[in-house]
Amino acid sequence: MEQIAYKARTHEALTKEYALVRAHYDELCARNLKLDMSRGKPAKEQLDLVSGLFTALTTPEDCVIDGIDARNYGELSGLPAAKRLFADILGCKPEECFAGGSSSLNLMYDTISKAFTHGLLHSETPWSKLDCVKWLCPVPGYDRHFKITQTFGCEMINVPMTPDGPDMDIVEELIKDEAVKGMWCVPKFSNPDGIVYSEETCRRIAAMKPAAKDFTLMWDNAYCVHEFEGEFIPFPDIIGLCREAGNPDMVYEFASTSKVTLAGAGISVMAASEANLKYMVSLMSIQMISADKVNQLRHVRYLKDKETTLELMKRHAELLYPKFHCVLDMLEAEIAPLEIAQWQKPKGGYFVSVNTIPGLAKRTLALCKQAGVVMTGAGAAFPYGVDPQDSNIRIAPSLPPVAELQQAMDIFCASLKIAALEQLLNIA
Amino acid sequence: MEQIAYKARTHEALTKEYALVRAHYDELCARNLKLDMSRGKPAKEQLDLVSGLFTALTTPEDCVIDGIDARNYGELSGLPAAKRLFADILGCKPEECFAGGSSSLNLMYDTISKAFTHGLLHSETPWSKLDCVKWLCPVPGYDRHFKITQTFGCEMINVPMTPDGPDMDIVEELIKDEAVKGMWCVPKFSNPDGIVYSEETCRRIAAMKPAAKDFTLMWDNAYCVHEFEGEFIPFPDIIGLCREAGNPDMVYEFASTSKVTLAGAGISVMAASEANLKYMVSLMSIQMISADKVNQLRHVRYLKDKETTLELMKRHAELLYPKFHCVLDMLEAEIAPLEIAQWQKPKGGYFVSVNTIPGLAKRTLALCKQAGVVMTGAGAAFPYGVDPQDSNIRIAPSLPPVAELQQAMDIFCASLKIAALEQLLNIA
Repeated sequence: MEQIAYKARTHEALTKEYALVRAHYDELCARNLKLDMSRGKPAKEQLDLVSGLFTALTTPEDCVIDGIDARNYGELSGLPAAKRLFADILGCKPEECFAGGSSSLNLMYDTISKAFTHGLLHSETPWSKLDCVKWLCPVPGYDRHFKITQTFGCEMINVPMTPDGPDMDIVEELIKDEAVKGMWCVPKFSNPDGIVYSEETCRRIAAMKPAAKDFTLMWDNAYCVHEFEGEFIPFPDIIGLCREAGNPDMVYEFASTSKVTLAGAGISVMAASEANLKYMVSLMSIQMISADKVNQLRHVRYLKDKETTLELMKRHAELLYPKFHCVLDMLEAEIAPLEIAQWQKPKGGYFVSVNTIPGLAKRTLALCKQAGVVMTGAGAAFPYGVDPQDSNIRIAPSLPPVAELQQAMDIFCASLKIAALEQLLNIA
Repeated sequence: MEQIAYKARTHEALTKEYALVRAHYDELCARNLKLDMSRGKPAKEQLDLVSGLFTALTTPEDCVIDGIDARNYGELSGLPAAKRLFADILGCKPEECFAGGSSSLNLMYDTISKAFTHGLLHSETPWSKLDCVKWLCPVPGYDRHFKITQTFGCEMINVPMTPDGPDMDIVEELIKDEAVKGMWCVPKFSNPDGIVYSEETCRRIAAMKPAAKDFTLMWDNAYCVHEFEGEFIPFPDIIGLCREAGNPDMVYEFASTSKVTLAGAGISVMAASEANLKYMVSLMSIQMISADKVNQLRHVRYLKDKETTLELMKRHAELLYPKFHCVLDMLEAEIAPLEIAQWQKPKGGYFVSVNTIPGLAKRTLALCKQAGVVMTGAGAAFPYGVDPQDSNIRIAPSLPPVAELQQAMDIFCASLKIAALEQLLNIA
């Protein structure tokens, strides 16, 4: 097939291309494949890396640390040793960490839920008593974030992403509205684009002067140590940056070991100022006695510290790199010359995010589905599931083996080409 | 010391008794003890019983059940095998079970929280939009339950307990008020009295006709298999009883393995009608991907079924029985003849609940504290921490060794006698 941009081709050439691509697509359909690239799930080989976790604690004696028996009730904010581990990884202080259960998503949901039912530290009233709560959503972003603010009735406002992070000129304008109560951020290897916020953007975010006294920066550092290519990229401590900028209580940072050890059976952290944590812990004391400290200790014994964790992440990278490169190489070879889509080339995180020329995402994904490839639904990376350009497609390459990925990407590229050709040729 | 009821003694005899008891108390104080009987914490020996749990899963192959890899994302409502285990224990259907994380308290809190933020299945509006939400609290009851309904602003109404469970004549009257949205229940070995609701009471509860369409029975079956004396006492399946009585969606049942395996590192369950679970799971899909299924599977492999679980509970009983009998025997010997307090003689659960003649609880506990014994705070077993009679004292004998318990109970009995004598002798 030709390697000239579609827009530079004649109608005749496009018609010929359409016939060729369609024939290839039909052939792929006939294979009756069933491939799932919808979520950022680790592959079995990754899960197998950490079987040592299972035997990190085997005796009663193993369960005691800092004089605390992890098997019994107590220590609402988590094992001090788990806080030290997370503080080492995040670059904050142990006393700024709340060590939680298996899900950082749950910690995020609970934070927003408590803002609505009780209010946060600097809230004048629980948000459920307000007529309107607005929320900033850098897009494309993480669908599960947006669903949290949606379920509580927030009015979500799209903020464009730049290669350095959210467009701060726009953010600084929007936060002048007192009804704007917060913003979602994935600062490193953003979901889905894989963008690493620049230090300047992080500093601008930390120094924001929002009209709302209880403006809440939800800093989901989900991929803080998740490089699949190259060396570990250091990131700033957002808690410290906010403190230095005079906004000590503005930020809640989240992370987990779901993609370090086991998906959904790891441990999580919420990091925030000591004043914020004191307030949140007073609310959480009604909700729980503590998270599972045995699993926290299991992780402390197994991951040890940041250095040992980064070594483990190198093993994950060895498994993930070929998968991401399969996706990126096929996009480069098959799609780039056609100039029908653009994408970042992430070096970490769990996604490749393809931004097509406007109007192709839904159709491309419908064609993929017809050929047996399930991807994240079109629009998922936008509030309310509405992609105004119908352009963004999130590819999650982590789960399938490379051989399957190649087949899935073959189908994806054919589907995207068909969608583009249908548009150019005006085929209904 | 004499064994005649205080009220039957002369002023002179009481004055003499006071001097004797006071001298004994002072002697106990001089020992500078530091004993904690404040919470129902398992003892180290109990935690040591279940070390086999740690090695129930050691290889990747161990982690697969029913074709599901417990290590990866998915199965929001929990592993089917964990649901089967809980259904076996609770006598309900597996499809009526939501298998959760380490804390049933968290599931209870979340249920009430969602009632306020989103409303429950039959709610016309989220409860946060209502002017007044009332809640029935059988007393004495579990302080953590009452704190949940308190933190959401419910107006809590005390309902007296009888030896058969909550006084249903009163309950049936109160639920005619549409603002009454629910009731806390601990149906077996109630916290703190250790009362087992009679089957008749359970049937009456299941057949209630509350004015509120979304009346919510919070059925905390925390001690469902927790006999420390005698044989397992079967209990009715409340989900089935409510269904038969035409109230299929009225009840949410909770349980956990916190006092079967590890305190705060076990697994939990919320059981409810399939319609309720479907609704709740749709709300929870925003909050979490799933609870820790690895720990669920660890428990499935280790506990196996109800029969094996009951065998383990016999081992717990061997450790708990001497402790409870130390408390009950000392109460019988030291306090019963004086007629200054009454108590149930539970055969399971985690507490002995002493109901003194009115006005003695606070003073008794202050004296205990002065002598180095910390108990659950006075009033804790009542909404808002207010015991209208200042009468209830909850004793938690599980944690200390018997030798310490004897010392603590010595202090407790002396403290209670002093409090009673001060009242009778009118000593400020």
